[in-house]
Amino acid sequence: MINVAIIGYGNLGRGVERSIKQNSDMNLVGVFSRRQPVDVQTDGAKVYIMDDVLKMKDQIDVCILCGGSATDLPEQTPALTADFNTVDSFDTHALIPEHFANVDQVAKKNNTVSVISTGWDPGLFSLNRLYAQSILPQGETTTFWGKGVSQGHSDALRRIPGVIDATQYTIPNEEVITRLKAGERLSLTTRDKHFRQCFVVVADGVDKDQLTATITTMPNYFADYETEVNFISQEELNANHKKMPHGGTVIHTGTTHENSHQVIEYSLKLDSNPEFTASVLVAYARACVKLAKEGKYGAHTVLDIAPSYLSPKPVEELRAELL
Amino acid sequence: MINVAIIGYGNLGRGVERSIKQNSDMNLVGVFSRRQPVDVQTDGAKVYIMDDVLKMKDQIDVCILCGGSATDLPEQTPALTADFNTVDSFDTHALIPEHFANVDQVAKKNNTVSVISTGWDPGLFSLNRLYAQSILPQGETTTFWGKGVSQGHSDALRRIPGVIDATQYTIPNEEVITRLKAGERLSLTTRDKHFRQCFVVVADGVDKDQLTATITTMPNYFADYETEVNFISQEELNANHKKMPHGGTVIHTGTTHENSHQVIEYSLKLDSNPEFTASVLVAYARACVKLAKEGKYGAHTVLDIAPSYLSPKPVEELRAELL
Repeated sequence: MINVAIIGYGNLGRGVERSIKQNSDMNLVGVFSRRQPVDVQTDGAKVYIMDDVLKMKDQIDVCILCGGSATDLPEQTPALTADFNTVDSFDTHALIPEHFANVDQVAKKNNTVSVISTGWDPGLFSLNRLYAQSILPQGETTTFWGKGVSQGHSDALRRIPGVIDATQYTIPNEEVITRLKAGERLSLTTRDKHFRQCFVVVADGVDKDQLTATITTMPNYFADYETEVNFISQEELNANHKKMPHGGTVIHTGTTHENSHQVIEYSLKLDSNPEFTASVLVAYARACVKLAKEGKYGAHTVLDIAPSYLSPKPVEELRAELL
Repeated sequence: MINVAIIGYGNLGRGVERSIKQNSDMNLVGVFSRRQPVDVQTDGAKVYIMDDVLKMKDQIDVCILCGGSATDLPEQTPALTADFNTVDSFDTHALIPEHFANVDQVAKKNNTVSVISTGWDPGLFSLNRLYAQSILPQGETTTFWGKGVSQGHSDALRRIPGVIDATQYTIPNEEVITRLKAGERLSLTTRDKHFRQCFVVVADGVDKDQLTATITTMPNYFADYETEVNFISQEELNANHKKMPHGGTVIHTGTTHENSHQVIEYSLKLDSNPEFTASVLVAYARACVKLAKEGKYGAHTVLDIAPSYLSPKPVEELRAELL
């Protein structure tokens, strides 16, 4: 059995708890949280305050870190990797090399293994970009996200004065995807690839035309996109726009000879983004423990972990069943 | 530079030659063939008879074996692995464990590395089945092939007395694929998943109704499918049905919680099946040479090779670019 500690108990932590229940080689040691969560789903699972994790060092094979990339993980992953094997979903793309270096140093010094930046993007989408580009070097890779809720864009809407609540969907341009899948080579702008759809609850007396203009011209978030703004009630937002579906597609179009176009496509369609991300973290937690047993100390990413490490089955069985 | 020998010069060998030209870290040492090929595509590339390969041992880092799985590879891969690092596309699913054991023994004895059974199925499709099943253990994986030419089924048609030439397309049931992608769980028979479409050239005087009955009831090949038989002229077959497109889809539908359905899809749409398979072999030839440099002697498959081994780029660069 692999003994797992969940660090942080938001949507991602709850998803990890559900995923552990689906994997018979995994045992949840406990949930470690800064706040006292009241609704742990697993019978008999203990809830501890974060500081207790060190006291339970001997009972834990791997910590799955479920905090955010902005402030939690840059601090928590190096700190916990001094005592534990760790897995995180650090997703601030530009800072991944720095985060890797920080964690790698701690892990090598303390004979632990950390798998950083796993999930689906970064994570499975990164993997698929690597496979596709290695196989078809004369080609173009395009990534589409959605249809799904962008937390960052929803937060940006909620920060506008007069906005009470909001949900933003990122919607890929299906027409462009269809053309790429047919092997067409396209030169695409940001505006060509995605639309943005906003559902916004506003306070009484807010000028909706003015607010629409504020949203659609907001730099970094909406200015570069076709953006649709819908004003709805809090009841409607709660009823229809509080789920967390997501997904996306990585399409690589390559050419092996004159008119030989080859298209590789990897797509996810997720009813629950946090539950799927959690399932990826759990599979890489298994890989993390195997790497630690082999003494492969240091930081790792999905790019340098062999696929068979993710499975509970012996590789002989995988060869017989899957090849 | 990685110095490559191509063993066998049919469609796959020609595809490998084209792929090597697209990879700037690869150098074609020569083509080794039982017959003297007249049309080598690469300027200055030498053609040798198969027996000369041993004389050039010092110049070759890896041999890419482009023979067939029925008779060539079971003999050639173990034989050449005694002296060379090798890559093959052995695809007789039921015999892969035996082939692996044979090659592994030779490789470990002679300090070489062999990557067996690579390509897209077995190969990339196997990889995707493994990733998907490891991440979503409560789920179902379904593989569809086509639209594409099945060499085995085309050969079976050509062996029928009265048939002069034939091409058989395997066609996946798009309606079923659409339903699976939407997250539906389906219990599918062989007949539900694929259709078979035959284009057949017959000798004068052949009873077409009788022949159609023979084809559609042929056990192992057509009896379990809806099969369409079209009689056409040799000219039409040559003009429209001599290309080698193929492709397929691996769909995994999993459940992470009650109504949370998660769909992972991997699809290939290939204008040239042999050229794409060749491109996969070439990427794994790079991995093979890296594994040999690290002393990881023995047989390997796509399942136990880390993705970063396929790329010519250093892993630091991959982390910065792809995560």
